[in-house]
Parts: sequence; C-alpha cells; structure tokens
Amino acid sequence: MNTSAPTTVLDNIGLLVTNDPSVGEGPLGMARDASVVFADGHVLSVGARGQIADERIDAEGCCVIPGFVDSHTHLVFAGDRADEFAARMAGQPYAAGGIRVSVAATRASSADELRRLAATRRVEARRAGITTVEIKSGYGLDVATEQRCLEVAATFSDEVTFLGAHVVPPEFEGRADDYVHLVCGPMLDAAAPHARWIDAFCEVGAFDEQQCRAVLEAGAAAGLGTRLHANQLGHGPGVQLAVELDCASADHCTYLTDSDIEALAGGSTVATFLPATDFSTRQPYPDARRVIDAGARVALATNCNPGSSYTTSMSFCIALAVRDMRMTPDEALLAATVGGAKALRRDDIGVLRPGANADMVLLDAPSYTHLVYRPGVPLIRSVIEHGALHRVS
Amino acid sequence: MNTSAPTTVLDNIGLLVTNDPSVGEGPLGMARDASVVFADGHVLSVGARGQIADERIDAEGCCVIPGFVDSHTHLVFAGDRADEFAARMAGQPYAAGGIRVSVAATRASSADELRRLAATRRVEARRAGITTVEIKSGYGLDVATEQRCLEVAATFSDEVTFLGAHVVPPEFEGRADDYVHLVCGPMLDAAAPHARWIDAFCEVGAFDEQQCRAVLEAGAAAGLGTRLHANQLGHGPGVQLAVELDCASADHCTYLTDSDIEALAGGSTVATFLPATDFSTRQPYPDARRVIDAGARVALATNCNPGSSYTTSMSFCIALAVRDMRMTPDEALLAATVGGAKALRRDDIGVLRPGANADMVLLDAPSYTHLVYRPGVPLIRSVIEHGALHRVS
Repeated sequence: MNTSAPTTVLDNIGLLVTNDPSVGEGPLGMARDASVVFADGHVLSVGARGQIADERIDAEGCCVIPGFVDSHTHLVFAGDRADEFAARMAGQPYAAGGIRVSVAATRASSADELRRLAATRRVEARRAGITTVEIKSGYGLDVATEQRCLEVAATFSDEVTFLGAHVVPPEFEGRADDYVHLVCGPMLDAAAPHARWIDAFCEVGAFDEQQCRAVLEAGAAAGLGTRLHANQLGHGPGVQLAVELDCASADHCTYLTDSDIEALAGGSTVATFLPATDFSTRQPYPDARRVIDAGARVALATNCNPGSSYTTSMSFCIALAVRDMRMTPDEALLAATVGGAKALRRDDIGVLRPGANADMVLLDAPSYTHLVYRPGVPLIRSVIEHGALHRVS
Repeated sequence: MNTSAPTTVLDNIGLLVTNDPSVGEGPLGMARDASVVFADGHVLSVGARGQIADERIDAEGCCVIPGFVDSHTHLVFAGDRADEFAARMAGQPYAAGGIRVSVAATRASSADELRRLAATRRVEARRAGITTVEIKSGYGLDVATEQRCLEVAATFSDEVTFLGAHVVPPEFEGRADDYVHLVCGPMLDAAAPHARWIDAFCEVGAFDEQQCRAVLEAGAAAGLGTRLHANQLGHGPGVQLAVELDCASADHCTYLTDSDIEALAGGSTVATFLPATDFSTRQPYPDARRVIDAGARVALATNCNPGSSYTTSMSFCIALAVRDMRMTPDEALLAATVGGAKALRRDDIGVLRPGANADMVLLDAPSYTHLVYRPGVPLIRSVIEHGALHRVS
C-alpha cells in the first residue's frame, strides 16, 4: 500500500456492516454512526463518525456493507437464450445441453466483441453492488476459443476460472473421454497462464465423477485452484468429490443428502448456493438451514449466464435465500460477501478492516434487512470499488 | 385533447407492445420497428418507424411496453416494519394486526410529512415503470387521519381508495360493529369527496362478510366504486361477495376454491394477484393458471405497503407470477398493464392506441420476456408518463 496516497473518509454512515466481529457488534461486526478511511484502494481504519482525511464522501446516514463477492459467474459469452427461457416457463425442463447454443454464438465472436459484451455485464454487476466477480470460461470448448474467453475474462477479474469441462461440444458427441483428454492436455496448457482456477460440471448430461476428477487433478498439477459444479439437477457424487479434492467451492448444491452435508461440514469446501438458478430453472430451492446448522461454510452467488440464471442481482439472490432457503437476512448477507470471499480463498475482500480492499456498497436504506424487506427495489445507491466511487442512482 | 399542442414521436422502437390486437400481432398487439406519436399526454398514432413530429425521442431499438398500472397500493403511511419482517423471516407468521403499528405512526404524522414520504415512493414507483398507481387509505382509522391520508393520496393519483375498514383500530377493540358504523357514517362522509373507490379487508382478524357488505354498500350509495381484499390468508367468503356486489376487483385471491373461480369467471370482477405479498409473508402462491383457464380476468399489482409487501417493483411481481403462479410472460405483462386497467375500470391506460394516455416504459432489453429472464436486474431505462419523459438509468 502506498502510504502517501491521498486519503478518503466515507463518513456519516448510519449503520456499517464490517463482517469483522472484532470491529463491531455480532457476527456482522456492525457499528452505528461510523466512518471508514481508505487510501490507494485499501481500508486504513474503521472508526466513529468524523475521522479526518484528505477527501470526504457523505453517506447521508445510509447503511454501508462490504461489496458483494460474486464467486460464480459466466460473464463472457455471446447471444442470449430468451427463447429457451420462455419455452421453459411454458413447461420444458432445463437441460445442460442448452449450453451448446451459447457455445456456437461465442465461437463465432471476436475477442473485441466478447470484451464489449462482458464489459456491459461487468458494469451492470458493479451497479448491483458486486465489487469482486469470478468469471468462468466454458462457452468456447475448443482450445482457441477457451483461450480467447479466458483472456477476455482476465481483463475484468483476477478470479478467472477455466471451465473447459462445461459440456461435451458437438464435435466430440459420444466421445466424452476424448474431449476430457483434450481439456486435460492442450486446452489446459493454453488456459493455465490466464486462469487462477479450474472447474468442471459434474452432472448427468455433462461429466461423470471420473472425468471431473481427471480434469481437476490435471488443473491442480498445473498450479490451478479447484472448484466444482455439483449436485445441480439431482443427487450425485459431485459434492463429496469436491470435498475429497479440497476444492475451494462446490457450487449449486441444490440436491444434498445427509452424507453430502456431513462431508461439507467436515472439510473446508464452501457450499455455494445459486438460488437465481433454481428460480430460473424451476428447480426446488436447497435448504441452506440444514447446511449451516451442520457447520458447513456457505456462499451465495449469481451464476450470471445466458441459460440458467441471467441476472447480476445479488440482492435478488439474498431475497430468495431468505424467503426460500431458510437463511436469516444476516446469514444471507454474510454468504454474499465474506462467504463468497471464502469460496475464492480470499481474506482481503468481503470484509471491512484495515488492509482489506476498500470495496463498499451504500444502500438507499437504513439497514441491509431492506435487501429482503424491499424485494426488487433497486437499493444500491453507490458503489466504492477498490477505493473508486461509482454513483448508481 | 389540445390538437395544437406540440407533437413528439418515440421512434426507433425495436419491439412495441400495444396491448391492442387491432394495432399489432397477437394478444399483445406487437409491432417491430415501430414509432408512437403523442401530444398533450395522449397517443395520436401508432405506426412504422419514422413518423414525423415536432420532437423526437430515440428508443435506440429497445422494447417499449405500456406503463404498468399498479391497481393496489398503500403508498401513504409513516414508519416502516423491518423488525416485524425480520421476525417473520425467523419463523413468525404474518397476521393482520401488524397494521396497527403503521396506524400509530401515521396518526402521529402531519399531512406535510405524509406527503413527503408518499412523494418519495411515487417517484420510486415511476422509476419502476408504474405510470398509474391506485392508492388506498387505511392507516388512519379515525375520521381526521383517514381524511388526511386521502387528501395526500389525491395529490398523487386520481385512483384513490377509502379503506377505513382495513382493521379494527385499538380504541374499538372488541367493538368491530361500532367501528363499522363509524366507517359507514361520519368517516365515509369525510372520505367520499376525496376518493373514487371504497375497499374493505375481508379476513379473519379484520372484517367478516356482513361487515364488508355493509361498508361496500354504504360506499356505493355514496357514489364510490367498490373493491375488496379477499382470500389472502385463508379460504373465505370474500371473493364471492366481491363478485356478487360487482366489485371492480377482488384483491389477493391467494386461496381460491373451484366455486370462487367459477364466480370470478361468471362476473366482471378482476382477480388481482399480489405475488410480492405472498413472497414477503411466505404464503403459498396462487395458481393463476386455473383462474385464467376458467376465463376470469386477472391483474397483477405490487400492494406496496410497509407490512406485507414493501416493494414498488412490478417487474419482480411479473417474475414471480411466471415462476410461481404458472402465468406465461405474455399473460403476466398483460395482467400488469391492461389487467390493472380493468381492475380500475379504465380503458385509457395499459394500452397504446390513439386516444389512450401516453404512458410508456422503455426497457433496457430487446423483449419484455427479459423482465422474467433477467430477474432482479433494473431494466427500466426510461418512463414516459402522460407524455413526459423521465430517464431512469
């Protein structure tokens, strides 16, 4: 941190959520009438109202929370799938194969076009209060396009995930093992320099346990952290595989057995719920209460993608988690911030304490409860991302 | 209409929904590459791209729909009930009695304060695409405060509803019939000059069938149109009473028997669904499919109020209606526009044809399907209300 950088104080905060119990009250580390000083993109101090700095931003008494950490998105793609969505709402079930529609459109798009599309979504996500966004590839599924998508993703995030094992592309129809061989070989070689993580979709219609294990082990050997799409459309081996391989996160977790929950509670793998996906695919919502009560770590993420969850609204995810997944508003807020940080194995985001990123959301409300109490209302007033202020409304 | 008023054309509309099948394709009367000319707050013509007018607004290829008609709100109140909401999310059931918390706060507030609070909510509703908003009283429950609330409501809407029979106020505890006598006598006398409609809450814990009948008949005799809160928290006589009295609308309709649906289908009373209320009170969602298939008229409204549905987001209501009430996106959009208009017995709103109000919403999307496909994303780009342009994002 450059200590000679100009300092800024965000002052007159009615209710501040720090997520650091040592800084304030309860698990959310709450303080009233607070201020936060930051410089060079990092928090310098959290204190009472009236700290002095070179510049001052007036929070006008509103509630301030850490920026949302969206640990699961697919922001780099071309085309949309509104027609498939409308057909689903008319009764057709969701199937992983729809991903191929986005693959065709993405392969046909240049890096510049993909960057332009992703930039629009990144701005939209920031306006939704998301200050850290993980971005996966997975709509290329050939070496050149996966590499192109990862390079584009890396211009928007340090949290880039190689998801070559999203589905089997059409040209490998009936030859999934051959495709896995490509993913673990030349595709991984091209991807690794641009990614921090490797991921796979463990599901009937995508990849089986053995194939996912091969992909994640190859990625780990290449120095990538591991994460896994698991148990989205039905029960399966994904969650327990994720824990066994010490993945940072098992994502979806819509269908969990008692053994799955026991495994999560016994490991350090975060259960990342994606309720907007369950909303958009008419799946049942997972029971987060069981998972939390068992002692497992949980996160909430948007899964922004054109097929199963085309939203950047973490507020919407929080509202669903409380209404339909038996999380309290406090738990949902924690899951969308520090929970997401844990799913990315980060301790410098999702929390407001000295040294952490200066990532904050100013809510047009006296409390974060309003994210659930006022569903659908755009409550994000301003976003401070790495110390830079972005006004929303 | 003043025919010498300056004309404006909203041009370059990618997809226009008129809700007039004689103007365009299907029940939504859709046209591509269209434009709308309006003057003095009313539509003059709907045509192809490139109509000529004094001024031009460029829709930049986006989707344009009629302004939402929110036929059920309680925008005039003081205080909020976030604590009650949080307690409910922790497991406490919703009960009508919580209304009294808002009554105490509202009685303690001046007309100026109530007007200031309602103005903020009216702006928020407009930013959500709502161009017509019905507003009920019902947090006064004494003659002076009901009159004050209705006067405030009338500064924001022509669709003002006297809801003295919301709950029995504390000072009439155990004397509901005495309170109904007050509502039907001096309170109605004070209210009628400021209201178009009368309403009552027919529910266990509020008012019974006989009391609601007395209130609505007294209101009708005073020249007010009738509407009824019916079947929100359980089965009951409300819906059939509403149809019998030819109410414009039976609101909530969460619990419907086959006989209720048959009655709705046989009358002109609109079944107005309030899904954000079912969301916020953890009630089951009504099955709109059954009601529509039976031939009844339906509407969607926000029920914006501090207790059971503190939202102005019609988009959120539309998304819930499709996800959880088995409406198609087309049906949900119709219900939120022309359906709301029917619930207010209006034919000049919720539709775009010559002579109708120039009330339009410009969506940041190629299609209205995106209101469901992109849940929680603020897609309202601009709102034209009675010919005046309001930019949102």
